[in-house]
Amino acid sequence: METLKLRKISIDTYRENVAYLHRDCPVYRSEGFQALSKIEIHEAADGSTVIAVLNVVDDEAILAPHELGLSEQAFTQLNLPDGTDVRVEHARPPDSLKAVHRKIAGERLMLDEYRGIIRDITGNRYSRIEIAAFLVSCSETGLERDEVLYLTRAMVETGKRLDWSEPLVVDKHCIGGVPGNRTSMLIVPIVAAHGMLIPKTSSRAITSPAGTADTMGVLANVELLPDHLHRIVRRERACLAWGGKARLAPVDDVLISVERPLSLDSPGQMVASILAKKLAAGSTHLLIDIPVGPTAKVRSRSAALRLRKLFEYTGDHTGLQLEVIITDGRQPIGRGIGPVLEARDVMLILNNHPDAPADLREKALQLSGRILEFDPDVRGGQGYVIARDILYSGRALAKMEAIIQAQGDKPGTAAPGYLRKPVLAGSSGNITHIDNLQMAHIARLAGAPLDPGAGVDLHRKIGEPVSQGDPLYTIHAEFEADFRFSCEAAARDSGYRIGLQSEAENKKSG
Amino acid sequence: METLKLRKISIDTYRENVAYLHRDCPVYRSEGFQALSKIEIHEAADGSTVIAVLNVVDDEAILAPHELGLSEQAFTQLNLPDGTDVRVEHARPPDSLKAVHRKIAGERLMLDEYRGIIRDITGNRYSRIEIAAFLVSCSETGLERDEVLYLTRAMVETGKRLDWSEPLVVDKHCIGGVPGNRTSMLIVPIVAAHGMLIPKTSSRAITSPAGTADTMGVLANVELLPDHLHRIVRRERACLAWGGKARLAPVDDVLISVERPLSLDSPGQMVASILAKKLAAGSTHLLIDIPVGPTAKVRSRSAALRLRKLFEYTGDHTGLQLEVIITDGRQPIGRGIGPVLEARDVMLILNNHPDAPADLREKALQLSGRILEFDPDVRGGQGYVIARDILYSGRALAKMEAIIQAQGDKPGTAAPGYLRKPVLAGSSGNITHIDNLQMAHIARLAGAPLDPGAGVDLHRKIGEPVSQGDPLYTIHAEFEADFRFSCEAAARDSGYRIGLQSEAENKKSG
Repeated sequence: METLKLRKISIDTYRENVAYLHRDCPVYRSEGFQALSKIEIHEAADGSTVIAVLNVVDDEAILAPHELGLSEQAFTQLNLPDGTDVRVEHARPPDSLKAVHRKIAGERLMLDEYRGIIRDITGNRYSRIEIAAFLVSCSETGLERDEVLYLTRAMVETGKRLDWSEPLVVDKHCIGGVPGNRTSMLIVPIVAAHGMLIPKTSSRAITSPAGTADTMGVLANVELLPDHLHRIVRRERACLAWGGKARLAPVDDVLISVERPLSLDSPGQMVASILAKKLAAGSTHLLIDIPVGPTAKVRSRSAALRLRKLFEYTGDHTGLQLEVIITDGRQPIGRGIGPVLEARDVMLILNNHPDAPADLREKALQLSGRILEFDPDVRGGQGYVIARDILYSGRALAKMEAIIQAQGDKPGTAAPGYLRKPVLAGSSGNITHIDNLQMAHIARLAGAPLDPGAGVDLHRKIGEPVSQGDPLYTIHAEFEADFRFSCEAAARDSGYRIGLQSEAENKKSG
Repeated sequence: METLKLRKISIDTYRENVAYLHRDCPVYRSEGFQALSKIEIHEAADGSTVIAVLNVVDDEAILAPHELGLSEQAFTQLNLPDGTDVRVEHARPPDSLKAVHRKIAGERLMLDEYRGIIRDITGNRYSRIEIAAFLVSCSETGLERDEVLYLTRAMVETGKRLDWSEPLVVDKHCIGGVPGNRTSMLIVPIVAAHGMLIPKTSSRAITSPAGTADTMGVLANVELLPDHLHRIVRRERACLAWGGKARLAPVDDVLISVERPLSLDSPGQMVASILAKKLAAGSTHLLIDIPVGPTAKVRSRSAALRLRKLFEYTGDHTGLQLEVIITDGRQPIGRGIGPVLEARDVMLILNNHPDAPADLREKALQLSGRILEFDPDVRGGQGYVIARDILYSGRALAKMEAIIQAQGDKPGTAAPGYLRKPVLAGSSGNITHIDNLQMAHIARLAGAPLDPGAGVDLHRKIGEPVSQGDPLYTIHAEFEADFRFSCEAAARDSGYRIGLQSEAENKKSG
């Protein structure tokens, strides 16, 4: 079989390996390839190999007929120098694809089958359409709870697993869907001030107006290399960093890169994805927050309870001490939506400022209390009181400042976007509903999280009275076009509903 | 918003539009894109637009920062000259994706929803992972028969539809899975010699050792432009051509390009795909052949009956006169497997040669008879006799020769591959099983259909006696490496099973 000269093509194809062959390449012509075929590239001498999707080049300026080009990711994976002799052949479908077909047919898979699938995905043997097929099959017939457990285990095994050599490594996770819900930035300093180890890594927002990494990024550097992160955690007992630099359950990132554009969001996948990441991060104790509300990710209490059981079952069988708390997700938490506005809320609370949003503070204290009770020395029911004491005494603020200093503080203060427009109540009455999705949509259109100062600042929450013409919230933006789009969206649907119900009645029913 | 200069990148990305942005491109940086994002490219001046998946270029030799590159397919679709000012933005998910999510959740979709999905796929608004999600969702919960009907209708509407202006335009289709089953090349000349219009277009083999287009390609030119094809059909009442040049139900080709690498093969998708193509081709009467056998595509008679009902229901509701015939798919039909060997079988039968394989001839006569009975002037039950008369009188051969001349005959005679190895019986007895899949596998490894002379020539069929050391079949190949692979596979598993059963007993049970 003829060999070709390896050549790096400086094209970034993200999570899809792409190989390039010239149309006049003798191998291309003889092997009956066509573009989008999956091919396997071997080093002629030994066994190094990589699988990639084929693109066919018609331009010798990009690639010569005797060359085999690889996109940046594929080239890095093959890890051979430019000019190496390589051979090319049709890639065989990965063995584990048979299990995916059985899953599509509605069957239940076993641990070894999930291991096979996850190993092949990690080894880049799956194309993106094959990953999509796997995810849809899991989403459609659903995963039985044992399957969630198998999938979790298989995912943990794909990457490295941190070992903090401490009996108590705590973490929290919110399943999301409620804007402004920035509790981690309060819980971490409170819990760490108590002395617990809480090495918190978070994601950036992808579909929401701000993630913890975006909001913390307003105050401090969040892109830390693993070694640096470890030193900070050892000294401060905590960090608030972006999780993208660690290689924890790396297959999860691959799955998410297909799940996200497909907007797939099945309970089984979600539980496996969250727990695999936490187990790989070395967590021993975990608090899960499931907000419930008509416009939250989880819409009903019964769905939340089902999800809780699934978390508990999987946690119990993987040695993770796990508590699930179901919270009020009927409306955004706090006042700000968007990195700068949310960071402001957090700092107001840590500073015990009278203008601090009470709902975010209360929720953070509740969750902190539950985490503190993971400490065997904390008496059941005392967590909340300890958390409140840490916050009110200023110890939480001091810890937060220490973390910011350790990670590297951001010079200057970021301000809310200078373009601002209040959105006014169209009638008088009481606020009965605030649509999480619409508020997130308006904040994202305004530019959040890319423009940290963009977002929405809420002036009224559910149950509060308004008079016609009162400002419900203010839109902040940094660019004219974004500002206009956001204001137009708010004009079409403010996201608020105002009823005639009295405040007292509303509180009863809430 | 900034504009970029359009530039064609000479890379063939087949059925996936790819756009290229330089990493230092100001638009790339400001819009928060990442590789594999779906982006929409607009002409700055008017409304031309195309959707593509983003690749990020790090090499100015490929693309400059102020340029927007499009792969060949995407460039052709946008249909604007190099250097045009274009704008780029995030592509919104297609509206019909909501229906796909409902299908994933197990719901039943209506005609308008299938129309929306098929329209968006045809308009290149779906990425390949979105198409995969749609196909898996249809495969997993299955399609109700009304959904198959809706999907068929939606698919027919996507392309042009031929109108032959005759009351009777016949066609046949075999759902495949049985090697050597080259009945079309016999049915077409028989039926056309009777005067019926049978404009037969076929596919090339993708997963099998030969398709009708590959086998006919041994004898004649099969790549005909639509106009040429029409002239031939008008004159000869028939053709035997490759269907790839027509734009019939083009969305089907897109779906197949994802279905095939995923090995998805759901009954609903299959029925819709076949019938949409036939309706678009202007067929009025259609015979469907469903071979049943333990190693055929359809494994049981009950599955075949279910499939038949689905064909009938969909045919009846789309105005297609449709007959389904369930045939014996326990073993390959005819002797040759591979283009040259199969063409030889066909010509032996047309020449009424004593060595012609009887099973292929009988099957072709049976199917031809059923098609002839679509003619209102043919009395029920007389079709077979007429077919046999046409074959035995030499009129079928004359028609085949006329079709070959009209399409353009191939100079010289193609011979079976010169590398040959007989595979011998390991014991004495009667042949009880021949594995369709293994025989196809061995023939493909030998080089079929790419090397037309490669393949397998069967010397024994089920029920026939053999003595140890008798040749079961001969492998033919044109290249040493292929030959070796094929012989090794046959040595591991010959595909034949030999029992002690007597011939008489076997015939009874067969």
